[in-house]
Amino acid sequence: MHRIPEEVDTPDVLIDRDVLERNIARMAAAVRERGLLLRPHAKTHKVPEIAALQLAAGAAGLTVATLGEAEVFAAHGAEDLFIAYPLWVGPRQAERLRRLSAAARISVGVDSAEAAAVMGEQLGDAAGDVAVVVEIDSGHHRSGVRPEDAADVARAAARAGLRVEGVFTFPGHSYAPGMPVEAAAQEQQALDRAAGQLAAAGFEVRRRSGGSTPSALLTDSATATEVRPGVYVFGDAQQLELGRCALEDIALTVAATVVSRHEGGNGVPRRTVLDAGSKVLGSDRPAWATGCGRLMDHPDARITALSEHHATVVWPEDAPLPALGERLRVIPNHVCLTMNLVDDVAVVRDGALLERWTVAARGRNS
Amino acid sequence: MHRIPEEVDTPDVLIDRDVLERNIARMAAAVRERGLLLRPHAKTHKVPEIAALQLAAGAAGLTVATLGEAEVFAAHGAEDLFIAYPLWVGPRQAERLRRLSAAARISVGVDSAEAAAVMGEQLGDAAGDVAVVVEIDSGHHRSGVRPEDAADVARAAARAGLRVEGVFTFPGHSYAPGMPVEAAAQEQQALDRAAGQLAAAGFEVRRRSGGSTPSALLTDSATATEVRPGVYVFGDAQQLELGRCALEDIALTVAATVVSRHEGGNGVPRRTVLDAGSKVLGSDRPAWATGCGRLMDHPDARITALSEHHATVVWPEDAPLPALGERLRVIPNHVCLTMNLVDDVAVVRDGALLERWTVAARGRNS
Repeated sequence: MHRIPEEVDTPDVLIDRDVLERNIARMAAAVRERGLLLRPHAKTHKVPEIAALQLAAGAAGLTVATLGEAEVFAAHGAEDLFIAYPLWVGPRQAERLRRLSAAARISVGVDSAEAAAVMGEQLGDAAGDVAVVVEIDSGHHRSGVRPEDAADVARAAARAGLRVEGVFTFPGHSYAPGMPVEAAAQEQQALDRAAGQLAAAGFEVRRRSGGSTPSALLTDSATATEVRPGVYVFGDAQQLELGRCALEDIALTVAATVVSRHEGGNGVPRRTVLDAGSKVLGSDRPAWATGCGRLMDHPDARITALSEHHATVVWPEDAPLPALGERLRVIPNHVCLTMNLVDDVAVVRDGALLERWTVAARGRNS
Repeated sequence: MHRIPEEVDTPDVLIDRDVLERNIARMAAAVRERGLLLRPHAKTHKVPEIAALQLAAGAAGLTVATLGEAEVFAAHGAEDLFIAYPLWVGPRQAERLRRLSAAARISVGVDSAEAAAVMGEQLGDAAGDVAVVVEIDSGHHRSGVRPEDAADVARAAARAGLRVEGVFTFPGHSYAPGMPVEAAAQEQQALDRAAGQLAAAGFEVRRRSGGSTPSALLTDSATATEVRPGVYVFGDAQQLELGRCALEDIALTVAATVVSRHEGGNGVPRRTVLDAGSKVLGSDRPAWATGCGRLMDHPDARITALSEHHATVVWPEDAPLPALGERLRVIPNHVCLTMNLVDDVAVVRDGALLERWTVAARGRNS
């Protein structure tokens, strides 16, 4: 049980540097052993220092979600950036893509012939500097074309002057109880089918990209060439409750103070209130979650509600309520949202503050 | 149907200045007519320009949730700030409170004898410069003492050298279908009882503060002296679906682009994907909501899922899917979270960009 450094005012985000480094090393080794490349999703952390640790551990490049994130990491020296998103490119986005491709190797998602045509047109002479990767739907039913339509998109991209590099998918349905194995199988089938389509249409399929944190270690190098997990660097309450990480793998917690304390009774809950609400934890709460996050050192307490600046914590009848002013560490349900809420984070080791890192890509949503 | 200014890249937050001003004027007039003071909650908008409009419309002061928010608004000239939160005051918080009270009239929530004692001790000679308001629980069961315990807290505060100004409550359970009338009645009863307790203990009760956006216009000046609504300046999809504002009262929307489009079939939903996800809309979704926000100009579409950078929108069978690249305005479920996700917002009138406002208190969570 690491203490919260005295210098930290709550609420604040703490990153345990030892756990972070262990998580990064472990995923790097596991992916390498499977014969895959690792292209971690930087939307989880948005921190150049963490990207540098991932690249030093052998990552082949970074995945990002937006042009703004790509710009931040390119400015910090990232040389290979995959914007795994079906960008719609107008004149301003094209100008940003041109500037980006002068600084780094840029690849971009595409999931329609129309978007590919518009991207090529807007990029003009620079179209050949941007590689595109066709997004396919492997069962999550968000963006991405059906695997059998991948070649149509690739042909439109090639006609528009873009370099077609391969196919990618996000098996988002792997984030549910019992789903990783099935989702990983569907991902594999979809990548295989789409890659086959592209090859039959004469494309050299150099990238077959899959993999979320829950499914990354199920991805097979017979089909995929790379995986793009994000959350693994920190872990969070969702991963913990799904059994996909252990308590000792949690690298990110939110330091909070008990500001209100009530023994309850007569139908009123026995509870404490912490000064960490949805404006620092984020309010993602899947139906199967036991609450709005977990307490690191009190596994039986339940965070029953989040307001913007309050977490209501209900305690078991036989556990003493913590004292007013006591400081506790909260594990958010979804770390990607937490990191997007703060301008900087406290990096700690054995409960001592080492330094602060700026969340340089926070809020870079466009 | 106002267009999205061409200069705006998506996702971006648009504030319709005419609607904003109308909402501010209407609440100011309605509260004045009821014989109450209006102390709007600035955690909703976090924007000094909007606070200035509220104060110009006659607001008695501002409510904030954190020391950081108080510092931002004090720096922009606010003269009367109520931190409606049970602060736990250590040496650094005390120093900030001392500095704040040199710049503005500061009042702070307190909900335990212990927190009052610690606050007074930490403030030392400056204790008399800070007014405290006892927080009571009127049925939301978050922070706040039972009305019958209010005098104990007030006495502890007075012993600690703090000025006791009155009582406040947040009827948060008014944010549910059919609840405002009952919650407002409970609020009134709780304020009445707690104020009676304080008066019987010899305190002059100058402030009896209640009122959320859903219940503010039900609060009775026979009991309360002021209300603290926040969301009314913008409205949001929660208020809209609860019937507490109309579509034409929505002042804040998120501009988004259709980046992916699928006719679906064979069990796969007929959908578009917009480039506005939980990292700009926030992911609050009450059980009774129809989805993760609404589309301003397409009331029958349903936002069925939010990822961090994707909104999945399912369309009625008989409605044509919007084109790729089309730009749509999304009404977030909870505007307070949206404002806390962006560094600045686009102020528009009749679809034209007037200026940009900095969300100066964004992320000031401590």
